[in-house]
Amino acid sequence: MQVKCTRIATDAPSRVDLCHNAPFLRIFSLSASDTPTFAGPSLQAIREAHARIAPHIEETQVMISYPLDELAGALLYFKCENLQLSGSFKIRGACNAVFSLSEAEASRGVVTHSSGNHGAALALAAQMRGIRAWVVMPRNAPQVKVRAVEAYGADISFCEPTLAAREAAAAELLRSTGGTLIHPYDDDRVIAGQGTAALEFLEEIPDLDIICAPVSGGGLLSGTAIAAKSLRPEIMVFGCEPLNADDAARSLAAGHLEPGSDRFTIADGLRATLAPRTFAILRERVDRILLSTEEEIVQAMRLLTEHLRVTVEPSGAVAAAPALHKQIEGEELRIGIILSGGNLDPDTIPAAPDPRARAEYRKPQEER
Amino acid sequence: MQVKCTRIATDAPSRVDLCHNAPFLRIFSLSASDTPTFAGPSLQAIREAHARIAPHIEETQVMISYPLDELAGALLYFKCENLQLSGSFKIRGACNAVFSLSEAEASRGVVTHSSGNHGAALALAAQMRGIRAWVVMPRNAPQVKVRAVEAYGADISFCEPTLAAREAAAAELLRSTGGTLIHPYDDDRVIAGQGTAALEFLEEIPDLDIICAPVSGGGLLSGTAIAAKSLRPEIMVFGCEPLNADDAARSLAAGHLEPGSDRFTIADGLRATLAPRTFAILRERVDRILLSTEEEIVQAMRLLTEHLRVTVEPSGAVAAAPALHKQIEGEELRIGIILSGGNLDPDTIPAAPDPRARAEYRKPQEER
Repeated sequence: MQVKCTRIATDAPSRVDLCHNAPFLRIFSLSASDTPTFAGPSLQAIREAHARIAPHIEETQVMISYPLDELAGALLYFKCENLQLSGSFKIRGACNAVFSLSEAEASRGVVTHSSGNHGAALALAAQMRGIRAWVVMPRNAPQVKVRAVEAYGADISFCEPTLAAREAAAAELLRSTGGTLIHPYDDDRVIAGQGTAALEFLEEIPDLDIICAPVSGGGLLSGTAIAAKSLRPEIMVFGCEPLNADDAARSLAAGHLEPGSDRFTIADGLRATLAPRTFAILRERVDRILLSTEEEIVQAMRLLTEHLRVTVEPSGAVAAAPALHKQIEGEELRIGIILSGGNLDPDTIPAAPDPRARAEYRKPQEER
Repeated sequence: MQVKCTRIATDAPSRVDLCHNAPFLRIFSLSASDTPTFAGPSLQAIREAHARIAPHIEETQVMISYPLDELAGALLYFKCENLQLSGSFKIRGACNAVFSLSEAEASRGVVTHSSGNHGAALALAAQMRGIRAWVVMPRNAPQVKVRAVEAYGADISFCEPTLAAREAAAAELLRSTGGTLIHPYDDDRVIAGQGTAALEFLEEIPDLDIICAPVSGGGLLSGTAIAAKSLRPEIMVFGCEPLNADDAARSLAAGHLEPGSDRFTIADGLRATLAPRTFAILRERVDRILLSTEEEIVQAMRLLTEHLRVTVEPSGAVAAAPALHKQIEGEELRIGIILSGGNLDPDTIPAAPDPRARAEYRKPQEER
């Protein structure tokens, strides 16, 4: 693993300072070598998912910004899943799952639990196939996400904001409807669908050195890691997580699943925890987890708003925060960042966290 | 003129309610008929401008949103000039002007005065051609716009926020540098460049019934009106203006140039006033000016942020505000809206103006 860091350091010797949040990290298992068969769906499954969902989704654009490159000290490529249908990458996995169902299964509808984006995506995917959808949402889900699920015609059941309450409510719905559970991330069809974002990303920008995706339950990061490491074995795959919801970092460091954090994070979409399925995939294929503070997440949102002129929700900015705060840098380093969602309630746009962040931006530092 | 309104009413008889802000309006002169030669650049000049600038600018995308269609009671098409290079349509006119200069002229650089977006655009266009640019900016220009002009390498001179102070400072720069003035709107090269946005728009969506563009100095609206009325004589061209900066509405109603308003508007890009050149074009080619309150402008920004997931500055949302507040509606009416800019300082994102607006949104009214 350190070999790879050195390789990048050799390629871009000027300002390389990978991994400066090392206290939070350790080296996970290698992606190649001693694992003969990998966990999770294959690259082929991701390619099939892409063929299945392509008629229904957007091939989202990749944006760049010279001021953000300068600020980051690296070459940043942003895959704009915030501009995806339903406002997030979640439509990829939901569509793949819904259009994989048999006619008989589909006729009984689909059920899920979601803090928001997966619920909206499943509602839309069900609408596209013309079937019913039931969505369990926590009572504290952002209003903008509740509105989206409603708008796509799903039935909503509200529950307490705990994983146990969500799962109990979903189980009851499954019993009463006979529908199929489409889990937000603990499902190979969903993981394969989420992997199509990285597939498109690397088809457009084949020479990325690093790809960063947010991690919550691990569906997007799993699909990203499978697609990216299969297409380009030398790429580094970084998961990005709020410091206040750092269960993936802790789980990978400990080698077993750790419980979720009870601290608050503005990144409401990243409060879920890994499943055994996604944990196994991440152990094999993900190089590091990078953590960001709440202030760094907010500042990343603001920088993206200013320079890309797109709306990014807090969870959607988490994969951008490490590069924008020089956790990863290197003059010629090509960093791909998945902006995972844009469902931001205008009422909740956060204010500036710290005037110094702005001052730093105005005069980028040569060296930290 | 009323015939056209009736035509649209006939096409879409259900909820047509054009022109409900009639107290602010009157019918201007017709666009066809009794004017044998039109003022301003020709469609051919706009086509030539497009060929000249196409290698340097983005062909911006057109977005749609079903929830916004439902809210508006019409079919809305948004031309995303907020995602244009430099963050606004202004790069079109600036590029056309800069790349029209002779080598000798270009070598002495370009000068302008601008509250922001034109200054940034001219700075970028000059950088593209490798020549110098001097920009006079009012002291109260938004910081995000000042940063952009700086980032593109132009020299900035600050002045008092009046047209007279701007023009005096620019005149002094012209004397001292020998450069060429590229006026933000009182220039046929600039107007032809701005018209390329409507050219692209109608090439992509040829059957628009209405096209809405913001009006300040009138460059974008002039170019839009020339392109749109030339390509599709039956289209209606609406200029959109803050009620608090309504000089275009007053001037067109009075038949002569009226002074600017001294009221404050959040739409900082729309505080300029028409020039005789743009006034002449608008009289011939623009059907109406629609006015929006400050609250309507802010609400439009918020709706665009939520549903299109793009950043729109206040001035950039002014052309969307009338349709989003049902000043124009009709079930099958195809309304093209130019979102003119996205240079929004994250520090100045306005808060919700009125909780009722949100409540109304959650349950769209069938009839007003």
